[in-house]
Amino acid sequence: MASPAPWKQLLLTALDSNSHLKHANFIQIATVGFNGKPSNRTVVFRGFSGNSDKFQINTDLRTNKVEDIKHCPFAEVCWYFTETWEQFRINGKIDIIDGLNSSPLKLQQRETAWFESSLKSRSQYLGNAPGFPSIYDETSMKQTNLNPSTGPVDAFCLLVFDPEKVDYLNLKSNNRVVFTVSKPQSEGCKNWISKNINP
Amino acid sequence: MASPAPWKQLLLTALDSNSHLKHANFIQIATVGFNGKPSNRTVVFRGFSGNSDKFQINTDLRTNKVEDIKHCPFAEVCWYFTETWEQFRINGKIDIIDGLNSSPLKLQQRETAWFESSLKSRSQYLGNAPGFPSIYDETSMKQTNLNPSTGPVDAFCLLVFDPEKVDYLNLKSNNRVVFTVSKPQSEGCKNWISKNINP
Repeated sequence: MASPAPWKQLLLTALDSNSHLKHANFIQIATVGFNGKPSNRTVVFRGFSGNSDKFQINTDLRTNKVEDIKHCPFAEVCWYFTETWEQFRINGKIDIIDGLNSSPLKLQQRETAWFESSLKSRSQYLGNAPGFPSIYDETSMKQTNLNPSTGPVDAFCLLVFDPEKVDYLNLKSNNRVVFTVSKPQSEGCKNWISKNINP
Repeated sequence: MASPAPWKQLLLTALDSNSHLKHANFIQIATVGFNGKPSNRTVVFRGFSGNSDKFQINTDLRTNKVEDIKHCPFAEVCWYFTETWEQFRINGKIDIIDGLNSSPLKLQQRETAWFESSLKSRSQYLGNAPGFPSIYDETSMKQTNLNPSTGPVDAFCLLVFDPEKVDYLNLKSNNRVVFTVSKPQSEGCKNWISKNINP
């Protein structure tokens, strides 16, 4: 059993200190598109996968970000905590888990994520394709008819983000620490090392 | 004279409605590194360049982001306003203005940006190189000795970000509008078109 990543406690403490703010779990995630240009958008941190240091993010399979990630699985999350003035820049790789995934374990993980979402969140996946021109029609009415026991719909996609480097900056104390994985991973084990760097 | 970009008033209104929050002008900017992977970090919006729709950002020439931008000048800013629940995703191109720039006009712009910064902000550029291992030494003491009339130091760099696409999302009204430049630019003129899209 791997010991917890050394930055995880820092992050959990920041989350706790900022938990009175609705936006405390809003993170910005950067990816690279087919054209080689960066994209950046706000998504919601949905907690860690079990006891690991991997993040869960829910998304609509029809968004551009899924295409971006299929093309280039690397991402950098920027998480700024507005109350405590702490920034975490987290670089890592993303695994896309949609309804066609071949792993029964991952499909189970996706189903759990679905049922952990509010009914309001789930109903968004029944709406029109995000990013397409708005046309008011009856399909948008489907949103009200979601059965609470219905499993994940096709558009529901779980993203699992696996951190490989964390750059922590505290603007109050002016401390900056970078955490990196020192050795190649073996069986999910990571050996993290930390270094103080200039802010 | 070009008319103002149609998204600019939306942004100015959001800035005004959120202006009581210290972090209202903190934005996340994504770039692509030499390795083709994305980077993402918080920077401070320093206002528009004159009457244009270009953003100004101050940075240290010694940061990785400057290298990233030299390699690939494209960036996407993600700006989330925590009070009004509005997100602006702004895609564009960055111009780097350091002390070796060949344009006298740009050098003047950089000097103005320097003097518009607080003394505390300016003194950061006298510190040790950001991102390098922390070593306590006397050079960090230089920060207290900055003369207010001294012009920009070598490490001071002005970034000018030129928006080409703006994706606006209002999470309260659930409205999303995308603004794009319809024609190639001629002499700084841009013709913006807008379209309502599904959130």
